[in-house]
Amino acid sequence: MDKRLKIRITHGPNTAIGPGKADLLEAIIQQGSISKAAQTMNMSYRRAWELVNVMNEAFKSPLVSTAHGGSHGGGAQLTDLGKTVLQHYRNLEKKVRQTAQNELSSIYKLLK
Amino acid sequence: MDKRLKIRITHGPNTAIGPGKADLLEAIIQQGSISKAAQTMNMSYRRAWELVNVMNEAFKSPLVSTAHGGSHGGGAQLTDLGKTVLQHYRNLEKKVRQTAQNELSSIYKLLK
Repeated sequence: MDKRLKIRITHGPNTAIGPGKADLLEAIIQQGSISKAAQTMNMSYRRAWELVNVMNEAFKSPLVSTAHGGSHGGGAQLTDLGKTVLQHYRNLEKKVRQTAQNELSSIYKLLK
Repeated sequence: MDKRLKIRITHGPNTAIGPGKADLLEAIIQQGSISKAAQTMNMSYRRAWELVNVMNEAFKSPLVSTAHGGSHGGGAQLTDLGKTVLQHYRNLEKKVRQTAQNELSSIYKLLK
């Protein structure tokens, strides 16, 4: 069975950034819109918007900026802060996997 | 707002061990029963049982053993494997917080 380490940073009751939100930010970079990003992730547009909204509210300024133009239209892109947070999160994941390899494999070995 | 790093290990679609499950294992050690552990965590007995069941199924052998004696009775305790997994998880958390402190504080600083 697939075994993974997942890390997230909570901010009060919400997850500010975690695996799903980081993947969504990357999909927004690639697709240039929240609705297309949601499609590639098999996620509803509503759900993607909720995740973006939680991130935009948790950080000091928004991570995703949207252009206006109809309910699904106008496109979206990461702000400078969005790119910075995504990069820090990927660095954090990498660092954790590298440095905690022994502790991690101790647990993995005990899983089915 | 409260900011925390949370780590979990997934096993297929489930979380094998994470912050809530580790706290539940500790509560079972302290309380000696799943129902009392659930009470101290403001969790339903049913929910606590579900979490225990997921853990017991994810690892090579159960982490929690229960004595029979009525629907809520009989008591529960951690198996040797349960104690080992809990210790490895707490070590993992500690190691991660120590080694990823720079990456973490980079993100914390950007949160509201």
